[in-house]
Amino acid sequence: MTADTATVRHACREDVPAILELIQELADYEHALDSVEATEAKLLETIAFAPSKSSTSTTTLPQTEPTSPAKPARCLVLTTPAGTVAGMALYFYNYSTWRARPGIYLEDLYVRQSERKKGYGKRLLVELAKQVIAMQGGRLEWVVLKWNEPSIKFYESIGAKMMSEWVGMRVDGEALKKLATLLD
Amino acid sequence: MTADTATVRHACREDVPAILELIQELADYEHALDSVEATEAKLLETIAFAPSKSSTSTTTLPQTEPTSPAKPARCLVLTTPAGTVAGMALYFYNYSTWRARPGIYLEDLYVRQSERKKGYGKRLLVELAKQVIAMQGGRLEWVVLKWNEPSIKFYESIGAKMMSEWVGMRVDGEALKKLATLLD
Repeated sequence: MTADTATVRHACREDVPAILELIQELADYEHALDSVEATEAKLLETIAFAPSKSSTSTTTLPQTEPTSPAKPARCLVLTTPAGTVAGMALYFYNYSTWRARPGIYLEDLYVRQSERKKGYGKRLLVELAKQVIAMQGGRLEWVVLKWNEPSIKFYESIGAKMMSEWVGMRVDGEALKKLATLLD
Repeated sequence: MTADTATVRHACREDVPAILELIQELADYEHALDSVEATEAKLLETIAFAPSKSSTSTTTLPQTEPTSPAKPARCLVLTTPAGTVAGMALYFYNYSTWRARPGIYLEDLYVRQSERKKGYGKRLLVELAKQVIAMQGGRLEWVVLKWNEPSIKFYESIGAKMMSEWVGMRVDGEALKKLATLLD
């Protein structure tokens, strides 16, 4: 386990080139590189960043820019002792109505292929779990592709339950424009 | 269609008793009334409310309290011409990494059973779609129980696609505490 010697911290603006590389590697892994519309400029506009690399605590409430409708995302980065960004956890705050408690939704977890099998993915999930507890939140949630069995087994091994009785629904693109004007 | 004469607005603190009633009715419908831990006090602490009932525009950025990790949720309420709260859409802001754009995640949509078949659910979804477009967001998303075929058909009829290739994962309760201390 080399995760002990890695550092996890809130991403700052200087991390954006590395974050974009990770997003592209992840999309390639999910066979969807063509779907990546993210650019460095767009990431800078939509992620709430920490002020500098000196911010290392992930369990106190993050010393980042405030989130807002236009900037809902936060990002943890994991760096190796050599200072390379080896992985990231991009997330936003979600909500459970029944519990009336906030939580964290993990939008993307990714560790570079060259940095696998070192416990880095687990380390990032642990940091997020700590943050949920620190904010008195109820849940840490995410989705995974059904065919991605290695990931599902890994997630179950660290305590995650599969929410098999639910299915996601999405409106985007032209359908979103049509829905917005449906009653005009 | 009586949805034309209904009003949709951002919820204010005075709406909390009605919101709690709707949450309890929804939980009962989903056979999970025992799971409701929400109270009026908890809802007041965790939802970003509009300042008063005078705020009626849902498509400009909401004039509500700012969202925060402890208060990530916003809520639209639909009121009948008589002033009764007949339905609600409780939501938070989500994020698409590939698009580097924000969006809206609809946590709960509910219309009182006595107020069904009047187009109120559709009206609430239309208002959320308008809000996503106004914020230059990419997606309106939610989940539905797989056995809830009437809802799925309704959602598909207004342009939603089922995300059948994905499955949700959740860590909560004791498993969340265990995960947070896994590397200690």
